[in-house]
Amino acid sequence: MKEDKENCIFCDIIEGRSPVSIVYEDDKIIVFPTIEPVNASHMLIVPKIHAPYLADVDEETTLHIIKIAREVSEAIRKSKYQCEGINWFLADGEAAEQEVFHFHFHVYPRFKGDGFGFKYDRSKNFIRTTRQDLDYIANEIKNLLQINSKEHFTSNTPKKL
Amino acid sequence: MKEDKENCIFCDIIEGRSPVSIVYEDDKIIVFPTIEPVNASHMLIVPKIHAPYLADVDEETTLHIIKIAREVSEAIRKSKYQCEGINWFLADGEAAEQEVFHFHFHVYPRFKGDGFGFKYDRSKNFIRTTRQDLDYIANEIKNLLQINSKEHFTSNTPKKL
Repeated sequence: MKEDKENCIFCDIIEGRSPVSIVYEDDKIIVFPTIEPVNASHMLIVPKIHAPYLADVDEETTLHIIKIAREVSEAIRKSKYQCEGINWFLADGEAAEQEVFHFHFHVYPRFKGDGFGFKYDRSKNFIRTTRQDLDYIANEIKNLLQINSKEHFTSNTPKKL
Repeated sequence: MKEDKENCIFCDIIEGRSPVSIVYEDDKIIVFPTIEPVNASHMLIVPKIHAPYLADVDEETTLHIIKIAREVSEAIRKSKYQCEGINWFLADGEAAEQEVFHFHFHVYPRFKGDGFGFKYDRSKNFIRTTRQDLDYIANEIKNLLQINSKEHFTSNTPKKL
C-alpha cells in the first residue's frame, strides 16, 4: 500500500539509504531542502518515525515540527534566497495533494512573480456563505471538538461551577 | 498602512464589531469558519492580539494555534462536510498570498474534484535541483538557524564537551 514503510522515500533518507542535505536534525525530526522546490530553499520538516498522516503524528512531535518551522522560516528570510513571503503547507491525504505518505510539513519562500499560486473553480470554491450557514457549520464543528472553549478559558472571570 | 489595527477586519470580529460564528475561543485565540471558504467548513485560527505577521506571534501562541488546528482537523474529518483530506496553510506576507494582515492559520477540507489546487509555472517552480545545489542551500540555511542540531540532540550518545 502507498502508506507502507517499505516503499517510503523519506524512510530511505532517514535511515541512510538515500542522499540528503541536512539543515537540522534531532532525535524526533529532520529538515532538508526538497529536490523539486516551489522556489529555492523550500524545506521539508519530517518526523523520523514513519507516520503516514497527521493523525499518526503525536501532538508533541507536531508542536516540535512547528517550533522548528518558525526557526527555519526566520533563517530563509535572512538568507540570500529570494523571499518576500513564506508559506507553510500541510497536505494530509491524497485528495489534499499529499504525494509522499510519510507526514511532512512544507516551509517555502515566495516572491512576487514567482509563478506559483492557487487555482480554483469559482463555481465551487470561495463561495460567499450566509451568516445562517456559517452559524450552522460552526455549531456542527464545535459539537465535534474534543475540547471546548469553556474548559480552556484562562480569563480572570470566575468560573461558574 | 495595511498592517494597521484600525482597519483590521479580524480585530473587528474579536472586539465584537462584526458578526462571527465561533467554533472555539479562549484567552489567546478564536476559531471561526471563513465567509469565503475553499470548501464548506474551512476554518481560520486567529490570535486575539493584533499580530500582522508570523514574526509578531510568540512561539507559545503559535504552538497553541497548532494544538487547536489538530483538534479542528479531527472534528472536520468527523463532520458531515465532505472531507477526504485536510490542508493546513499559512500565508505570511503579501507575496505569499496573505490578504488580511492579522495572522491567521487556515484549516480546510479537501475532496477529489473539489476544483481547488496549485497553479505553477514549470519554467520556475518544481525545478529538479542537483545534490551539489541542495548541499549548498542546506548549508546556507543551517548557518542562519538560531538553533543547531547538536544542541537539541537527546540521543543516548554521550555528548562531546
